[in-house]
Amino acid sequence: MQVDAERLQCDLETNAQFGSVAVDDGHARTVLTGTDADERARDYFVRRLRDAEMDVRIDAVGNIVGRWVPETADSDSKAVATGSHLDSVPEGGIFDGPLGVYASLEAVRAMQDANLPVRRPIEVVCFTEEEGQRFGVGALGSAVATESLSIDEAHTLTDEHGTTLETALDSIDFLGDGRIRPEEWDSWLELHIEQDTRLEAENTSIGVVTAITGIARCAVSIVGEANHAGTTSMAERTDALAAASTVVNEVETAAIQLTEKDAPTAVATVGSLNVSPNAPNVVPGRVDFTVDIRDVSHESMLELIDHVRASLNRVEAERTVETSFSLPRHRKPRGMSERCRRAVHETATEAEISATDLHSGAAHDTMRLEPFTDVGLLFAPSQDGISHNPLEWTDWGDCADSAEVLAGSLFRLSNG
Amino acid sequence: MQVDAERLQCDLETNAQFGSVAVDDGHARTVLTGTDADERARDYFVRRLRDAEMDVRIDAVGNIVGRWVPETADSDSKAVATGSHLDSVPEGGIFDGPLGVYASLEAVRAMQDANLPVRRPIEVVCFTEEEGQRFGVGALGSAVATESLSIDEAHTLTDEHGTTLETALDSIDFLGDGRIRPEEWDSWLELHIEQDTRLEAENTSIGVVTAITGIARCAVSIVGEANHAGTTSMAERTDALAAASTVVNEVETAAIQLTEKDAPTAVATVGSLNVSPNAPNVVPGRVDFTVDIRDVSHESMLELIDHVRASLNRVEAERTVETSFSLPRHRKPRGMSERCRRAVHETATEAEISATDLHSGAAHDTMRLEPFTDVGLLFAPSQDGISHNPLEWTDWGDCADSAEVLAGSLFRLSNG
Repeated sequence: MQVDAERLQCDLETNAQFGSVAVDDGHARTVLTGTDADERARDYFVRRLRDAEMDVRIDAVGNIVGRWVPETADSDSKAVATGSHLDSVPEGGIFDGPLGVYASLEAVRAMQDANLPVRRPIEVVCFTEEEGQRFGVGALGSAVATESLSIDEAHTLTDEHGTTLETALDSIDFLGDGRIRPEEWDSWLELHIEQDTRLEAENTSIGVVTAITGIARCAVSIVGEANHAGTTSMAERTDALAAASTVVNEVETAAIQLTEKDAPTAVATVGSLNVSPNAPNVVPGRVDFTVDIRDVSHESMLELIDHVRASLNRVEAERTVETSFSLPRHRKPRGMSERCRRAVHETATEAEISATDLHSGAAHDTMRLEPFTDVGLLFAPSQDGISHNPLEWTDWGDCADSAEVLAGSLFRLSNG
Repeated sequence: MQVDAERLQCDLETNAQFGSVAVDDGHARTVLTGTDADERARDYFVRRLRDAEMDVRIDAVGNIVGRWVPETADSDSKAVATGSHLDSVPEGGIFDGPLGVYASLEAVRAMQDANLPVRRPIEVVCFTEEEGQRFGVGALGSAVATESLSIDEAHTLTDEHGTTLETALDSIDFLGDGRIRPEEWDSWLELHIEQDTRLEAENTSIGVVTAITGIARCAVSIVGEANHAGTTSMAERTDALAAASTVVNEVETAAIQLTEKDAPTAVATVGSLNVSPNAPNVVPGRVDFTVDIRDVSHESMLELIDHVRASLNRVEAERTVETSFSLPRHRKPRGMSERCRRAVHETATEAEISATDLHSGAAHDTMRLEPFTDVGLLFAPSQDGISHNPLEWTDWGDCADSAEVLAGSLFRLSNG
């Protein structure tokens, strides 16, 4: 099955105009939920769905679904769904989100053009506010679809000016009703740009995601006693930074040992650390830092969290500092379905397009859908791994190849 | 010999009004060189010197000297000098500096009142900008007196608005000429608040400083590679903060071992540490930090500096980070003269005022004078060790006791 590379590029370039921002280098767009740019992007998408003879419905948080029931399908059978998002970060790139949305639409058109015997309805989805930039909840549309956020809760979310999501969606005529029901889908596939350099480094066209890593973000404080660096003897000190440094090194050692044992993808990072009062002549009285823990195995994440707590307990006992620990963010890893991964690999092999397994360090709507249906996530290469940036780029050839693999995979799923 | 406690308190309370700042708790004053507050403080001090029949001269950087030649003294003999400073940090306390200046004046008045046979001229000195708050050089006045800074260099120092010291002093009519010559003094005593809690803890009225610690301020940078915390494996990282944490702990260990061996007063402090880019989800690419090393033994300071360098070499070898090291500040320890310390101890014993030996972790003008004449430094207790703060406090009784010991000590030195 051949996708129409030119038609896909035309859709992506048209979409890139909505909310476009003039920049010196690259292509920037700012598409926030419920803005004029968002309205134009959505209107164009809906028009293109209808051009492909799809039925369009809008749910209560503006998620858009285009449904195609092939003549060869039983309209009562579970649909194979696919899609991504059209919103962006401020001055974001033109592929993060839209590639997945328009490649999904192109996949349907390619199946239509090829007159394939597709056995299930195909639904093309655009989720609202994946980036969480206006109403503060990332993957907002899929959160409502999976009921981790109720429609009422979502409607009353406000932006920085106090405008609610409900008002914002109503103002652009995208306030529908009900919710998308992923539990009624046969399966789901999302195509997204990689936002990393592994495909580029291996000169490979398709990344078949095995799992989306979980993230645990630990917030740690260590409180000692701020004192004059000249007049407080070594024995009298309760140095918060010396204690924190011990923890930093112990966490690093624990993560390295874990990767050498049975969790090669586990990572633990103290990325942010702030010393107070942070003066050369004052013994640090307080240090606040974060520990970011990620892995595709939740067990190894929990093991690393235990290491952080144990290290804090040790410095409390040995240094008389006080410590506090919280987990403001804790998301389990999500494994992608074997069935979906196999469909992608078989399609790529048949089409002679190179594909490789990898995991995703970043979050996507697919992550929320995982408990409700069989899910798969494909990556297209990102030049230099850049995203959320006007320099974000994916070659048009890679866009077409990944759309072709998506189309073939959807066909396999619908007939599998 | 009795000092007039009330007269001393009156002078200190009057001085506290110049540059006073309203605060919720305590007594704050802001007296920066060449400001209106400084002019008023200096004018009052000069008037009080003249009230005590002293000759006043102003040197090229505004240092003020009041000279008293007792009838019993040979006016050609070397003077015994004493004093401190009147400037403050912003919203500083009312004792740090002024206690030493006005206790020195009170000592002269007490000797005059007692009609003692003083054998040498006594000079009462107020040094300019000990705090280094407007023109950026700490102990500025004594730096010029000891020629570690030339008069020309001092005159062209500028504040943050580009005003020179020369202009600022001229504007308040305190631009004199020549320099104070400590090499022509018989001896020097400074009374200062302790800014620490050792006297308070021992319930002792006078600290007799044995030595002012040296300070080495090391500026260290460690450069690794900033990377995404989710997609960079533990093995691929060059984490600047993990490397810095190792150095922080190794420096602490080295200092503790040294204090347990033969340098109980040695201290090493990483007080300031800044991570870049300092984001929870980014592996730190760079860390800049300071190591503040102090001791009364220069040898142990040098040993600790060697430990810092060795630790940096180790992390360079083991972690492939790049490090840089510099010593923007390096001041050797200064021992106080045996003769001056004895004079203070004998006076205290005779007056039945408790006194104890201790070292000073903080810098004072006395430190600069040490190579040029016999020097001594006395401490009065600081409540809770607080200074550079509106809550800085020394009981009026302690002010009087310390002034009395100062007066007796000056008399001993002049007749010794």
